[in-house]
Amino acid sequence: MKKILNDPAAVVAQSLLGLAAAHPDLLRVTTDPAVVSRADGPRPGKVAVVSGGGSGHEPLHGGFVGPGMLDAACPGAVFTSPTPDQIQAAVSRVDGGAGVLLLVKNYTGDVLNFETAAELLAADGVDVRTVLIDDDVAVRDSLYTAGRRGVGATVLVEKVVGAAAEAGADLATCERVARAAVAGARSMGIALTAPTVPHVGEPSFTLADDEMEVGIGIHGEPGRRRERLTDADGVVAALLEPVLADLPFAAGDEVLLFTNSMGGTPLLELYLAHGIAEQSLVDKGITVTRRLVGPYVTSLEMQGMSLTLLRLDDELTRLWDAPVRTAALRWGA
Amino acid sequence: MKKILNDPAAVVAQSLLGLAAAHPDLLRVTTDPAVVSRADGPRPGKVAVVSGGGSGHEPLHGGFVGPGMLDAACPGAVFTSPTPDQIQAAVSRVDGGAGVLLLVKNYTGDVLNFETAAELLAADGVDVRTVLIDDDVAVRDSLYTAGRRGVGATVLVEKVVGAAAEAGADLATCERVARAAVAGARSMGIALTAPTVPHVGEPSFTLADDEMEVGIGIHGEPGRRRERLTDADGVVAALLEPVLADLPFAAGDEVLLFTNSMGGTPLLELYLAHGIAEQSLVDKGITVTRRLVGPYVTSLEMQGMSLTLLRLDDELTRLWDAPVRTAALRWGA
Repeated sequence: MKKILNDPAAVVAQSLLGLAAAHPDLLRVTTDPAVVSRADGPRPGKVAVVSGGGSGHEPLHGGFVGPGMLDAACPGAVFTSPTPDQIQAAVSRVDGGAGVLLLVKNYTGDVLNFETAAELLAADGVDVRTVLIDDDVAVRDSLYTAGRRGVGATVLVEKVVGAAAEAGADLATCERVARAAVAGARSMGIALTAPTVPHVGEPSFTLADDEMEVGIGIHGEPGRRRERLTDADGVVAALLEPVLADLPFAAGDEVLLFTNSMGGTPLLELYLAHGIAEQSLVDKGITVTRRLVGPYVTSLEMQGMSLTLLRLDDELTRLWDAPVRTAALRWGA
Repeated sequence: MKKILNDPAAVVAQSLLGLAAAHPDLLRVTTDPAVVSRADGPRPGKVAVVSGGGSGHEPLHGGFVGPGMLDAACPGAVFTSPTPDQIQAAVSRVDGGAGVLLLVKNYTGDVLNFETAAELLAADGVDVRTVLIDDDVAVRDSLYTAGRRGVGATVLVEKVVGAAAEAGADLATCERVARAAVAGARSMGIALTAPTVPHVGEPSFTLADDEMEVGIGIHGEPGRRRERLTDADGVVAALLEPVLADLPFAAGDEVLLFTNSMGGTPLLELYLAHGIAEQSLVDKGITVTRRLVGPYVTSLEMQGMSLTLLRLDDELTRLWDAPVRTAALRWGA
């Protein structure tokens, strides 16, 4: 294992200290429990939007905390769900009395722990709702999931819901926006190499020099199939076709195209793939009106990429365009 | 070689098509010659700020084109200087008649080709000045350089000069700002793995599983020494101490700390290293007032990082804080 770290067991806490140091004006960070919250929270009368999940997917979720996006995030250990008390702590730090929306990627551990936290919060009188994100069309069920996994759409859902909450939407509206974004989003990913979890010390799997894993999860969990690594046209087609077929997306749709690096794939390759994906959508009569390109939902240093499509309407477009100020996503502010 | 690409010889042109597709409101892109320029340029009466260099360092330089930063960038082939006629084309696309400042990383090929372009432009009556960026303290001369190499400081110089030009500064002022930023910036980097140039197909060098290259260049060229990979504290010390000693930086200084991923090092590790670096500076009485953390000056998928310190005064701080809207760096706009 070649990594820049001290004690592998302390990697998340020590990384959070660096995140806090880098963004003192934006973030408040604690390591026990591990919570990243807005420096200006709680904000009375505002719906609090909270997410979290295993670490190793940075900038997800802590990099998306700030005005116009998340109020708080609770990072678990690498590829490990946050605990219920940690989720409670995150919520209590930003609860402004107008209700709390939990955005949860659909993995069994996350779902259970957020459910437990939601019950405890409800018992304390907090008006809490939960929306599951399940955009990955690659597999129906897996080692970590019942139903589809939550992957790239997470950043899109967090952005639009955060914008709604920032603009003063009530809890029911925020929940409706979240469900609309989840309903309109589909993703699929591919891996060329495996990630190495620091406390494990070995790659999560092995791929031959000429192989790719199609439908990879963001924890390095298996996808649909292994096959010979194709060229970029083949990779994009292998991702885009199942995504398009699933919703399905159709000619005339307006979409946001999110081309995501899993971490180790450089921008040179990522933009190349993005260009191919845009042209493919044009050819199918689908109009790309918004884009996001970069490493936003990663799997440590894994080489690979994912494509996410979000069907847009006027409301989602407006919420996407609204100002945001976070460590990883920022515009208009 | 495991990469997402079609024809390795066409990787830069095809990637530029994706960059153009991703940012239609911001960028105008041509592939022959390869030039990335502001969609809203040329701007009459404004100094044009132009940079460029080999590809493979994305988002440098095309990702920094836009209001408040570069007017144009000319990307060469991977790790290869842009040609004089390409540089001329970039300038002619954005020359607003108020002069042109060329920001050039100090590599022999870049220096020669930008010099030739500057002579040709001057012969055409363009008022053109050139500032070399040479912040890498690792080596004095190298395979690619006479003097220090230009690395991480490039993004900082491009930002502050771009802000000055955007605010209406004249050519002499832009040149002065660039020289001040170069004079106050020092960097050093480390590699854990090697990059693979697409048209070469093999890693640029090999490192044993327990080795790191201290003082690595951004083309995978050798640094000061190879040694056993240390923990993060050791890595940060190996980078920070030579950087501090070179200028030298001293107690009482206010600095911008730029913690840069070479591409393959994930944010989880990068923020961890950033936190250690900030604490080291605090311990030495140096005040970090601005930060940048992320993969901004990369070497394809190389795992590794660099630290850049820029000594700040009121003018550089104000220029750093000014609004910027580019693909890779954006705030206040």
